[in-house]
Amino acid sequence: MKLVTYQLDNKSYLGAVREQEIVDLTAVAPDMLSLIEGGPEVWARASDYAATAVSVLPLAGASLLAPIPVPRRNIMCLGLNYVEHAQESYTARGQETKIPDFPIVFTKATTAVTGPGAAIPYNPAVSDKIDWEAEMGVIIGRSGKNLSPDEAMAHVFGYTIINDVSARDLQVQHKQYFKGKSLDGSCPMGPWIITADELPDPHGLNISSRVNGVTKQSSNTSLMIFNVPAILYHLSRGMTLLPGDIIATGTPSGVGFARNPPEFLSPGDVVECEVEGVGVLRNILIQELNA
Amino acid sequence: MKLVTYQLDNKSYLGAVREQEIVDLTAVAPDMLSLIEGGPEVWARASDYAATAVSVLPLAGASLLAPIPVPRRNIMCLGLNYVEHAQESYTARGQETKIPDFPIVFTKATTAVTGPGAAIPYNPAVSDKIDWEAEMGVIIGRSGKNLSPDEAMAHVFGYTIINDVSARDLQVQHKQYFKGKSLDGSCPMGPWIITADELPDPHGLNISSRVNGVTKQSSNTSLMIFNVPAILYHLSRGMTLLPGDIIATGTPSGVGFARNPPEFLSPGDVVECEVEGVGVLRNILIQELNA
Repeated sequence: MKLVTYQLDNKSYLGAVREQEIVDLTAVAPDMLSLIEGGPEVWARASDYAATAVSVLPLAGASLLAPIPVPRRNIMCLGLNYVEHAQESYTARGQETKIPDFPIVFTKATTAVTGPGAAIPYNPAVSDKIDWEAEMGVIIGRSGKNLSPDEAMAHVFGYTIINDVSARDLQVQHKQYFKGKSLDGSCPMGPWIITADELPDPHGLNISSRVNGVTKQSSNTSLMIFNVPAILYHLSRGMTLLPGDIIATGTPSGVGFARNPPEFLSPGDVVECEVEGVGVLRNILIQELNA
Repeated sequence: MKLVTYQLDNKSYLGAVREQEIVDLTAVAPDMLSLIEGGPEVWARASDYAATAVSVLPLAGASLLAPIPVPRRNIMCLGLNYVEHAQESYTARGQETKIPDFPIVFTKATTAVTGPGAAIPYNPAVSDKIDWEAEMGVIIGRSGKNLSPDEAMAHVFGYTIINDVSARDLQVQHKQYFKGKSLDGSCPMGPWIITADELPDPHGLNISSRVNGVTKQSSNTSLMIFNVPAILYHLSRGMTLLPGDIIATGTPSGVGFARNPPEFLSPGDVVECEVEGVGVLRNILIQELNA
């Protein structure tokens, strides 16, 4: 299934995409987190319902929100999880490249989450060094702690696309990444969650980003330093993962700050992040009012 | 008011401490987050109710939980926010001390939260470098973004005590602090939230920790590098703070890893964190079953 959260008359609904239509899943679960927490039986019911429902609305023109508009806790993100991105990052800062021995994990605030098509607010008084980072997102389906790599994949509910929008000046000033990664609207997510049964191997997918149609990042998820089982193994050591948890798996090379000369986003710029088999996440940078 | 969340017959309740008794506040709000989100009118009603209610239970023997047992998002924490702690930390790692120009902010997972009196789980297969960090916690009462230092204090709901328990090996291995700060049970919080009206200035309070009765940290909140208005100014730049947000304001010197020789907690160790005018937060390290 491709599961969406969409808005109609200022209310949000859970739906499934079927061809070019959306099937309203409200009869199965009130929202995405309830569906995920419902477990395999509810997921099966949603799948049956999506296949057979008569009443649908067209996908084109639907107002999609982030699949999980208000996560229950911060989004967990991998830093420097592609070798070439680690290299470009250290080089841009005049440092020797160190490939991480352990996953580098930081978080983005829940208030950063925004949907496909949504504006990313730009306020130069806060940051004028706004950068893109296309990432594959993993959604946890079953709670787990101290998972072995072998059992980890059974805890995955599905996948999405995340643009880990980054304020590079704040990221450097505040040392730890949280602040520079957590501005309002800096976590576009979507356009949907594709369930794991439809994407059994997330490790051979092309991943790319474009700014105003020009390709900036182009890589493959097979090149992650820590793959999904390794990420879940490390994250879950002594720490319980919860249904609905969102994990951004890191970005490949080609980000703006590491370019020569560096490039940052300006109001009006359109950023597209694409993961093969998942979809395209498209957002536009908009000057914030009163900024 | 001193506001608590307490447990009775496996159910949790909102209460207020009055002398040596707890007044059940369920008639005013179902839980702490609802109370905080209710705003000044609900807070006033809680205060009136707490002062006049007839039915009470004794505080001694009550089973207190963390005041906010399940926060709506990760706990935000300041790193190196006391000069002497910054010095001891850099010295212990053989580095030159750098006093932060901007607040260093990381987060702890919601699943780390635990209550006063609760066991902190110890699993040497995950980490045997468990350290203490007594901190004053700030609870946000009113939503806000781009707050000036002058207006920031009006957004504070109250204060609590947080032990920012840290797995030092994981903190170093994973570079960013999140993982080493987020083990299950590594965020003891409480014993209550004292509302801001009863603690108008949080900046001249003695703050200390003891391990098995031996004082390890002893300082004063006046020595924070970034005080509460400065923290809220920086945090809220471009990022919306929400009612119920929890901010740990950093720990003074005297932590275990920076001692010579380094000290870490062992099963059976009792850690007490105290903030003058707030109270004492007491926890014990317990070997995890199956660990």
